[in-house]
Amino acid sequence: MTTVQIPAEPESIPRVKAVFDDIRATRKTDYVNNFWRALAFDAALLESTWAEVKSLMAAPSQLDPLTKELIYIAVSVANGCSYCVHSHSAAARAKGMTEAQHAELLAIISLAAKTNHLVTALQVVVDPAFDTSARS
Amino acid sequence: MTTVQIPAEPESIPRVKAVFDDIRATRKTDYVNNFWRALAFDAALLESTWAEVKSLMAAPSQLDPLTKELIYIAVSVANGCSYCVHSHSAAARAKGMTEAQHAELLAIISLAAKTNHLVTALQVVVDPAFDTSARS
Amino acid sequence: MTTVQIPAEPESIPRVKAVFDDIRATRKTDYVNNFWRALAFDAALLESTWAEVKSLMAAPSQLDPLTKELIYIAVSVANGCSYCVHSHSAAARAKGMTEAQHAELLAIISLAAKTNHLVTALQVVVDPAFDTSARS
Amino acid sequence: MTTVQIPAEPESIPRVKAVFDDIRATRKTDYVNNFWRALAFDAALLESTWAEVKSLMAAPSQLDPLTKELIYIAVSVANGCSYCVHSHSAAARAKGMTEAQHAELLAIISLAAKTNHLVTALQVVVDPAFDTSARS
Amino acid sequence: MTTVQIPAEPESIPRVKAVFDDIRATRKTDYVNNFWRALAFDAALLESTWAEVKSLMAAPSQLDPLTKELIYIAVSVANGCSYCVHSHSAAARAKGMTEAQHAELLAIISLAAKTNHLVTALQVVVDPAFDTSARS
Amino acid sequence: MTTVQIPAEPESIPRVKAVFDDIRATRKTDYVNNFWRALAFDAALLESTWAEVKSLMAAPSQLDPLTKELIYIAVSVANGCSYCVHSHSAAARAKGMTEAQHAELLAIISLAAKTNHLVTALQVVVDPAFDTSARS
Repeated sequence: MTTVQIPAEPESIPRVKAVFDDIRATRKTDYVNNFWRALAFDAALLESTWAEVKSLMAAPSQLDPLTKELIYIAVSVANGCSYCVHSHSAAARAKGMTEAQHAELLAIISLAAKTNHLVTALQVVVDPAFDTSARS
Repeated sequence: MTTVQIPAEPESIPRVKAVFDDIRATRKTDYVNNFWRALAFDAALLESTWAEVKSLMAAPSQLDPLTKELIYIAVSVANGCSYCVHSHSAAARAKGMTEAQHAELLAIISLAAKTNHLVTALQVVVDPAFDTSARS
Repeated sequence: MTTVQIPAEPESIPRVKAVFDDIRATRKTDYVNNFWRALAFDAALLESTWAEVKSLMAAPSQLDPLTKELIYIAVSVANGCSYCVHSHSAAARAKGMTEAQHAELLAIISLAAKTNHLVTALQVVVDPAFDTSARS
Repeated sequence: MTTVQIPAEPESIPRVKAVFDDIRATRKTDYVNNFWRALAFDAALLESTWAEVKSLMAAPSQLDPLTKELIYIAVSVANGCSYCVHSHSAAARAKGMTEAQHAELLAIISLAAKTNHLVTALQVVVDPAFDTSARS
Repeated sequence: MTTVQIPAEPESIPRVKAVFDDIRATRKTDYVNNFWRALAFDAALLESTWAEVKSLMAAPSQLDPLTKELIYIAVSVANGCSYCVHSHSAAARAKGMTEAQHAELLAIISLAAKTNHLVTALQVVVDPAFDTSARS
Repeated sequence: MTTVQIPAEPESIPRVKAVFDDIRATRKTDYVNNFWRALAFDAALLESTWAEVKSLMAAPSQLDPLTKELIYIAVSVANGCSYCVHSHSAAARAKGMTEAQHAELLAIISLAAKTNHLVTALQVVVDPAFDTSARS
């Protein structure tokens, strides 16, 4: 039950089929998950969103693939996005996250949330020592 | 201008001094940042908070020290904690984060926020394929 | 499964019935959605909430009815309120939101979330040029 | 530096003066804090906001005045509103909050944030036992 | 459908059984709710989380047990944690929260959210009068 | 005091100068605000972010320019981004937002926040009537 009308046969739309084919080829799987199926209601939004996700998450870069998923999970938890927590936890496992790493990720996310709220409740003043512009 | 009365001479309080000394020894620096100085208004809260941060962030574990800071930054940004973003960005740099890694971290955090909001606006239904309990 | 006991026959309570009747008359529909049914557990809270919603969202004002729903959806997405996203997306469609406008709304909401997180991660300093008090 | 033009002499506007006078009389103080001064840019918004705050926070009710302030602080911290954290922490102290209570409040808020994030990261399923409708 | 593999027979793990037994003894109930069952995937995380919750929420302290639950609900609502809202609303009822107190809690939480957003939209400047350090 | 090292002479970097020139041309102003100056620490991130903002916010589209800014402000307030609230409130004024429209925007944002929190506290179940897929 999404808020948009999802096309019943999305792959009959050429632009949608092209994106779905690229998702399958990039991820080496036949499965296209519901996020992309929902985005298929608007081909342009589907294309631009996939292009950005592919470019950042599927290409070799400064950070390794698993670290990128851990960061993605952390943001998704803090933003309260259930679907995103599910999909990126699954992606992290697919990229090798062990159960022990998962437990540690949860411990760090929840500790960060704890100190975030403590700092906000205390209204701690930023230390001049953190000033990056003074560092170079 | 915090919301609590910060002790003028925190290290005259033995329990506070013990924590500050441990912070300095653990981090190999003379500097104790404002978060700990503000928490010094309540020695028990200072002790338990430092114990938890030290145990998770300063001890060898499943994830490497820099990855842990990147996760911490991600949560702090999503929770809108300015002080925490400053302090953990400084910590990540101290642990070796390059400028290129910083730029990629920002790109991932902001992309995650973008798709978090897209998913929430679409109210995407969770794929049964993400079910962990069905996996073993 | 709400957190309060919803009255089985809410319209047997005169104050509740009066609000439900006004909702039906104002919206020109027989349907009273679950939010109001849940609020019926406390007649005073139901009355004050409906009075405020009616006054702002159902009366002619500075902004047109569809724009007001788009703003409401935007806040509801950012606050992660699933029910609110569903109900106000339905309301926006009822007030004429086209599929293309819906797609653009989603693009703007998710871009705003992206730059919100970028700005917070960068801790950008507010430009003096944005000072309203200097403008008049 | 607010986003609206604050009237230089707000009390020259009769509707604004009436609200400010009522704030002073209700709170038994000469001081009108910046929130109300900023809201003075729109007399109707000032009037309706003050009426709601006065009715809930300043009148005798089910919960005692200090408990109400603690709840207000908790929401304000979780929503990341710096000004609100400052103003309601000051209000709580004025209503008798001790330093030890303040420390405990911070401990509870930050623990709640921690378990909120843990639950979201785990995507815990709601227990049927929590169903209120099954209770009566 | 959680994101971790929940042990089918958690109490066959001695460390998990010890925590579950303590939960039952502390709360004087046979029921162990899903949060603790999900956390059982990692005994250390289960132990440390329960120790913290027990210490703050189940032991006599500065604030009475019901007030502590009301604060917990407030944070959980603002953080958008559905499960937590359910579990702590049930806990508050078990600790004596009346329907009228529940209604008032909801009114205060939602009013705080309203003024939090107003203040953020206005970008109100913090009053020097709120400075705690100037108070002693 | 941002978390990255802002180039002292950003326009000596050709890719940065090209973006700044396009910002000036698109917005018909000499002023380049701090967000873009901070992003200049990474030319690729600056380019992709500006391209997306320009495409959505500066080009003719389904929604009029002022409505787009109002939506942007709404998300920025709910996400607690002070800088974004300042910059987009200034942009909305530049695009014709009157003081009365600003007041109404604030009233709607804060009402939405209020009902978002009410709905989350009540855990209202989504009405089947909101199902879009059943509508066509």
